[in-house]
Amino acid sequence: MPTPVRIESIAIGTELLTTERVDTHSIWIARRLMEMGLGLQRKTAIGDDREALAALFQESLPRSDLVICTGGLGPTFDDFTKEVWAEVLGAPLIDQPHLRREIEAFFAARQRPCPPNNAKQALMPLGSEALPNPVGTAPGCWWEHQGRRIVMLPGPPQEMKRMWLDHIEPRLKNLFAAHRPTHTLRMLVGSVGESALEHRTAALRQRHGHLEWTILASLGQVELLARSTEVEALEAARRDFELELGEDRICTGEGTLESTVLDLLMARGETLALAESITGGRVAARLTAVPGASGAFLGGAVAYTPQAKLALAGLSEAQLAQGTVSAAVTEALAQGVKAKLGATWGLAITGNAGPTEDPHGPAPVGTSFFAVAGPHGTRTQHSHLPADRPDVQARSTTLALDFLRREMVRR
Amino acid sequence: MPTPVRIESIAIGTELLTTERVDTHSIWIARRLMEMGLGLQRKTAIGDDREALAALFQESLPRSDLVICTGGLGPTFDDFTKEVWAEVLGAPLIDQPHLRREIEAFFAARQRPCPPNNAKQALMPLGSEALPNPVGTAPGCWWEHQGRRIVMLPGPPQEMKRMWLDHIEPRLKNLFAAHRPTHTLRMLVGSVGESALEHRTAALRQRHGHLEWTILASLGQVELLARSTEVEALEAARRDFELELGEDRICTGEGTLESTVLDLLMARGETLALAESITGGRVAARLTAVPGASGAFLGGAVAYTPQAKLALAGLSEAQLAQGTVSAAVTEALAQGVKAKLGATWGLAITGNAGPTEDPHGPAPVGTSFFAVAGPHGTRTQHSHLPADRPDVQARSTTLALDFLRREMVRR
Repeated sequence: MPTPVRIESIAIGTELLTTERVDTHSIWIARRLMEMGLGLQRKTAIGDDREALAALFQESLPRSDLVICTGGLGPTFDDFTKEVWAEVLGAPLIDQPHLRREIEAFFAARQRPCPPNNAKQALMPLGSEALPNPVGTAPGCWWEHQGRRIVMLPGPPQEMKRMWLDHIEPRLKNLFAAHRPTHTLRMLVGSVGESALEHRTAALRQRHGHLEWTILASLGQVELLARSTEVEALEAARRDFELELGEDRICTGEGTLESTVLDLLMARGETLALAESITGGRVAARLTAVPGASGAFLGGAVAYTPQAKLALAGLSEAQLAQGTVSAAVTEALAQGVKAKLGATWGLAITGNAGPTEDPHGPAPVGTSFFAVAGPHGTRTQHSHLPADRPDVQARSTTLALDFLRREMVRR
Repeated sequence: MPTPVRIESIAIGTELLTTERVDTHSIWIARRLMEMGLGLQRKTAIGDDREALAALFQESLPRSDLVICTGGLGPTFDDFTKEVWAEVLGAPLIDQPHLRREIEAFFAARQRPCPPNNAKQALMPLGSEALPNPVGTAPGCWWEHQGRRIVMLPGPPQEMKRMWLDHIEPRLKNLFAAHRPTHTLRMLVGSVGESALEHRTAALRQRHGHLEWTILASLGQVELLARSTEVEALEAARRDFELELGEDRICTGEGTLESTVLDLLMARGETLALAESITGGRVAARLTAVPGASGAFLGGAVAYTPQAKLALAGLSEAQLAQGTVSAAVTEALAQGVKAKLGATWGLAITGNAGPTEDPHGPAPVGTSFFAVAGPHGTRTQHSHLPADRPDVQARSTTLALDFLRREMVRR
């Protein structure tokens, strides 16, 4: 086993020290590193303060083989990650005409003038390597210096992730190939609580105790992760857990609940229509985040008010009279959109997310009704989630999609 | 103006370096500090590694007046925050019988035997002060050492927060009473790039140079923040910037683009209906995240496919023939939903988010059309965003809401 690579991440931006922003980059990066058998030894978030930054960069050199910086590559006065690293390592900043041309092209493509202060983004420390940014103006930077490696990535998530995958990961794989990669078995589980799943799988996790287990809950679904350098061991665990979890397992591998539902629909040549009240478009948003969603997801109604339920989901005044948040109305909505769009399946969600009690019906805050109208009739389910508004809306979205998934796999 | 107190937080626990846990303590602590006019200068998360911890504690002493540690006070083998601080400051650990009795009482109260390894929780560095933990077994620690203050708090959130409120905040208020609270001026700006805004406001920020400025961009909107202890100075800046930004300013204070649009509608007694194609429900999701949205947002159609545009937004085959991604179709969609729901305003968005070219029309990936149908007719706008799918969908959502907002304030 080679000596571990010492890696630290540095998230740069005053907003990361307030309540305005959280450093989520380092979590994403930690996961990517983990899959290469690498890990972070330290995470730091620091403000846009030249002196403090210089001190931190200085400190990091003796203790880390790889320093991963995010943020501070923008065009504004408080972006100076490259400048400070250049100072610390005593290298001048060199203007790179080809970078300036790329930045100008970026603005040209948007029919916007290139502001003069973007010019500084074309400066790179002498001896470092610029990393192209296809989705933004800030080039990244890869710098090998006296056996240390320094990485500078832009702050915007899309830009950071794209650059990491295209340029950082391949380099790290070459550099640290000596490390046996850790493989991950991932299973997504629906509509089962974290502690319930923990209890239910305790014995099985013990049987596969040589794997490193993690259980992650997030708003209505649970992720089960096992890590090992032995693919066979993970494969054996996969078989046991798929047997144990049965229908509760959404998918194995990289999928999501929404991609699983769309895959099911497309595999069967079926289609889906939605009528969303309480979830207000969140189910549609999750489905349409999947490329090619239009192959099975036809569309839907955000039937947020009574008049929308009448106009968009073909509800009748009589049905509406039964209360806008009820099993009956939710069934009618599912059947209504299914018919309107000629879909195989209709999924409807109503409820009361709060904070105030629903003026149109007797549903207490946190109550949701789900209805699935399919080829074999309509089925409904309801849940009560004692939580705040965003939480209720997010969980109802997940529960609705999982209810549909279960109805489909049962047929 | 007193010299700022230099404060850093250290979150201790190997799980904080993986994807399993995020250090949320430091965010909560940052907010409490902010309300006292104090702020963090650095946040570090580090694993349960004696050597690394000792090095970090050592480093922190010269640069910080106050070091706030969370975690590592438990009874297990990998909890050694107190031990390491004692080593670093060369103080012995002293057994405190009264703490041991409290820990034993804690278990007795729960009819559970006190595990032997909990005894170590009764050890305190000589010269430090134990902080009682009414909701757990780990006492906290307050240590004044050569003008530095070191705080050690337990990891479990409810224990950490209770101890902070009962014992840390009162001490800090006494110590740093000289500091006046920092106030923040926040402005949200729409449809203006970060660097363009930075360039445009450079002179004005210079005129108000005694304020601490931050510019934060996030998918199609920019946040402008100014901090100061002087309310009058912020008020003067507010007047100047509101004048300079004009219509580009979404709101001042805590609002969001969606809450601003809803406030505008409600203040005018007007209503909104949506027809979303490319944004697939995201505009509706953002609006319905605001409590009381149903007061002005009636609902909408997620018209993701041609048949949905026909069935839900009242489009005609002839109109559809003009191409599903076009100014004409987007206008028709906005007018269609407006009429269907009897709303004052209809907002429609079409486009191609990629990754593959739109099969129904000639629109290149990244193209979006926006249409607003209102009391004074229909207006359209389009944008081209060479970005990836999630980015295009998120930015189009923001641009659409901001286009509507501008159309409204112009009347």
